[in-house]
Amino acid sequence: MNGAQSLVRTLVRCGVDTCFMNPGTSEMHLVATLDAVPELRGVLTLFEGVATGAADGYGRMAGRPAATLLHLGPGLGNGLANLHNARRARTPMLNIVGDHATYHKKFDAPLESDIESIARSVSPGFVRWASAPETVGADAVEALRAALGPPGQVATLVVPADVAWEPGGVVAGPLPPTPRPTVDDERVAEVAAALRTGEPALLLLGTAALSAAALRSAGRVAAVSGARLATETFPARLSRGAGLVPVERLPYLGEMVVDFLRDVRHLVLVGAEPPVSFFAYPGKPSWLVPEGCHLHRLATVADDVPGSLEALVDQLGAGRAAPVVAEAWRPQAASGELTARSAASVLGAALPEGAIVSDDGVTSSLACALATAGCPPHDWLYLTGGAIGQGLPVAVGAAVACPERPVISLQADGAAMYTFQALWTMARLGLQVTTVLFNNRSYAILNMELQRVGAEGNGQRAAEMLELGRPDIDFCQLARGLGLEAWRATSADELAAGLGAALATPGPTLVEVVL
Amino acid sequence: MNGAQSLVRTLVRCGVDTCFMNPGTSEMHLVATLDAVPELRGVLTLFEGVATGAADGYGRMAGRPAATLLHLGPGLGNGLANLHNARRARTPMLNIVGDHATYHKKFDAPLESDIESIARSVSPGFVRWASAPETVGADAVEALRAALGPPGQVATLVVPADVAWEPGGVVAGPLPPTPRPTVDDERVAEVAAALRTGEPALLLLGTAALSAAALRSAGRVAAVSGARLATETFPARLSRGAGLVPVERLPYLGEMVVDFLRDVRHLVLVGAEPPVSFFAYPGKPSWLVPEGCHLHRLATVADDVPGSLEALVDQLGAGRAAPVVAEAWRPQAASGELTARSAASVLGAALPEGAIVSDDGVTSSLACALATAGCPPHDWLYLTGGAIGQGLPVAVGAAVACPERPVISLQADGAAMYTFQALWTMARLGLQVTTVLFNNRSYAILNMELQRVGAEGNGQRAAEMLELGRPDIDFCQLARGLGLEAWRATSADELAAGLGAALATPGPTLVEVVL
Repeated sequence: MNGAQSLVRTLVRCGVDTCFMNPGTSEMHLVATLDAVPELRGVLTLFEGVATGAADGYGRMAGRPAATLLHLGPGLGNGLANLHNARRARTPMLNIVGDHATYHKKFDAPLESDIESIARSVSPGFVRWASAPETVGADAVEALRAALGPPGQVATLVVPADVAWEPGGVVAGPLPPTPRPTVDDERVAEVAAALRTGEPALLLLGTAALSAAALRSAGRVAAVSGARLATETFPARLSRGAGLVPVERLPYLGEMVVDFLRDVRHLVLVGAEPPVSFFAYPGKPSWLVPEGCHLHRLATVADDVPGSLEALVDQLGAGRAAPVVAEAWRPQAASGELTARSAASVLGAALPEGAIVSDDGVTSSLACALATAGCPPHDWLYLTGGAIGQGLPVAVGAAVACPERPVISLQADGAAMYTFQALWTMARLGLQVTTVLFNNRSYAILNMELQRVGAEGNGQRAAEMLELGRPDIDFCQLARGLGLEAWRATSADELAAGLGAALATPGPTLVEVVL
Repeated sequence: MNGAQSLVRTLVRCGVDTCFMNPGTSEMHLVATLDAVPELRGVLTLFEGVATGAADGYGRMAGRPAATLLHLGPGLGNGLANLHNARRARTPMLNIVGDHATYHKKFDAPLESDIESIARSVSPGFVRWASAPETVGADAVEALRAALGPPGQVATLVVPADVAWEPGGVVAGPLPPTPRPTVDDERVAEVAAALRTGEPALLLLGTAALSAAALRSAGRVAAVSGARLATETFPARLSRGAGLVPVERLPYLGEMVVDFLRDVRHLVLVGAEPPVSFFAYPGKPSWLVPEGCHLHRLATVADDVPGSLEALVDQLGAGRAAPVVAEAWRPQAASGELTARSAASVLGAALPEGAIVSDDGVTSSLACALATAGCPPHDWLYLTGGAIGQGLPVAVGAAVACPERPVISLQADGAAMYTFQALWTMARLGLQVTTVLFNNRSYAILNMELQRVGAEGNGQRAAEMLELGRPDIDFCQLARGLGLEAWRATSADELAAGLGAALATPGPTLVEVVL
């Protein structure tokens, strides 16, 4: 058995069943292994940013790692932006990067590059070079343990070509457990005491507190204490909809966060970090915790976060409290003019039960959250790291992880153009993804930011750098060119018809929302 | 004057007139400066890999740096693959990366990342953080000096947002000269002595030896010594065509290089490195210099390479020798079946005088070089670093640098999908680029490499990872969706008609060659 086979068999033994890839020559032995080990599914992407974003989406939905397979430093570089988002999401994933044969590196061939520096930037906690076929399996187990270990991370294993092709491979695994530390009683008691003061309190919930079950615990705490519940601005995954405990969401803009938190006297961090401004702006604060507000940390991101909420419920005697839950309702689909708001109502009227929403809609999808708050239960996946171009790849990964659930990809035009190649993989696999493409012919958020940063002298030449018209991009043609059916909507009624047709069509579809 | 303005005015004073960009919030002050300093042209790209590849193409053709403007670590990551190619091309370019405000970094906001590690991988010789508005102009001069200094490199200047927006900016420049060391007489004499032995010799010419003038010198050396002339496999730029001194080219595959060099007793490096295998393969050599062959280094890549050839001409008394030059000829355009070879004949019959050819055709464009060897003089730009997805962006940059020259982009289908967004920038600027898109529905080179690496057990599941059909990509639809006119050719005759129409059409066009 060569090193490649031992690596792939180890992955399977550790529960990894999917590898999103864009391989090259140095990864050919790993690719060849796919026929000998059919338990690992290879998914081809046309660009590495699709592979890394898909592994992120898969990990967020499955709760266990997918692997990627990338070609040397440039392939890793192409995958970096979505690895950044995955790092911020704390998604467990295994990044496998092929390298030149060990003895070949000193010759500085054209594709030689500094893989380690690039990998460290997104895998600060785990970068390892496989050194021999005998140990590459064990290396993979260590990498997966690091990926799954709290709080979850991207682990990178670099596999030189000769380590893959030489014989002597040893299958390792299974994966040891990666338990999360239980929060100690004193911390729980301290938070309970703060909540019992009756002073205005807010529980800031990180991703691990946003499952339906954890939200129920948080809802019980809120019911007995009057505390507000809020998520971070960009959680990795939020369960929401009718019958689930609803939460507020921290606004994007720092000054709005300041307003949002103005009266809060106790800010309780539940697997979340204190709020800071997304960007810095002249004369505006970066640290957004109000003066005089007490910060309490119930659980770190690495702790057993749902357990900490259950302990708090017990401590407060809230086990029988009835949490507030979202009522079932849907907006009426608007008619007439197509705006972000009317589009949101159309979405709210149609969102299928059990949907997974991948949100890379930037300014255009803001209204969609409100319009879907009472829809049947669904999951919402946010742009965790701020690197746009996440949405379509994450939709691919979510659909691969959950083939029985419909995926809705809310996608802004500017952001779509970073990773549009994802549509092809959707088409190849026949994934049930409906992309709602908001086309406002602009990096609209930057027009706002240009004003906010107080930039002077901005006129036509600056505006051209933020504008996506001239030529207008025809997203339906792009989608058809990659094998999808597509609809173009210039009114709310056309959107309702197009979205209805798209959702009823097997396989991936795209509806262009011309704003 | 704020830091941003002083930086941009410094660039202009140093001769930088173009900035390829994909900016975000942290770069808004730099974007706003475009209206105050119209001497700098901003070119918007929809993906950072287009910006970096375009700056590379610009630098190769103009011989002076273009700038890029990229958004934080993820934007730099998206640009990394073509920065790798630029590093290998030794193209002078200035990579400007925005960063969070200095005081904001400690808050670890979602877009915070390890920019330094990422930048070092492609700018090992120059990464600097601008620290104050007063000095950012001087920093830019240093960066440009590093970029242009021999042998040419990518220099990265990181500009925190507050350094850009705070007042106190000081314009710096102009750029000090960056002379290249003259090769000393002893080295020239040693090479001349080797050539005078009459033993089989080959001059391996790096990019700086491939201008029409330097080739004439090399041709004189060949005329009096009998030495062969060859380029590296992937030079950054080669001047060729009727009336110019023709050169052989080192093959891509190591064993073919061994054959190519078998009888050579004196290998003279003229701004080139000794040949090594592109990839390692089991049982095949990495170092390709034949045993018993003497290596002579006439000039390093950092030296005055054309000067070294002139000195060699003098030393050999070859100043009046008549070099062999390529005869003027064109192939007859083939009719009937469309193959890589018949497509090449159609190209050879039509290549316009003064064309710039950006070659990212991988296996499909191999035949094009032969078919165009006698065409009117033109320049050929190769895939220097092996990171596919270079061709379309380099074509953008070449067309911006040389608006009066037609650009032909020879583009493989798989490679095209990494940076297809470049077509939009071509359309916005109305660039005279004709893309010849070879669609063989496959990563064809990987099918070959899969065999070559000796991978076992490869069957259908491995083959699927190398195959680009299911669904077939319709490149004409993609091109039209991005604002281009496009033609589809399924026979050599259709290609001749389509290419003729494309070349006669103002602005960018695409001809899909269905193989």
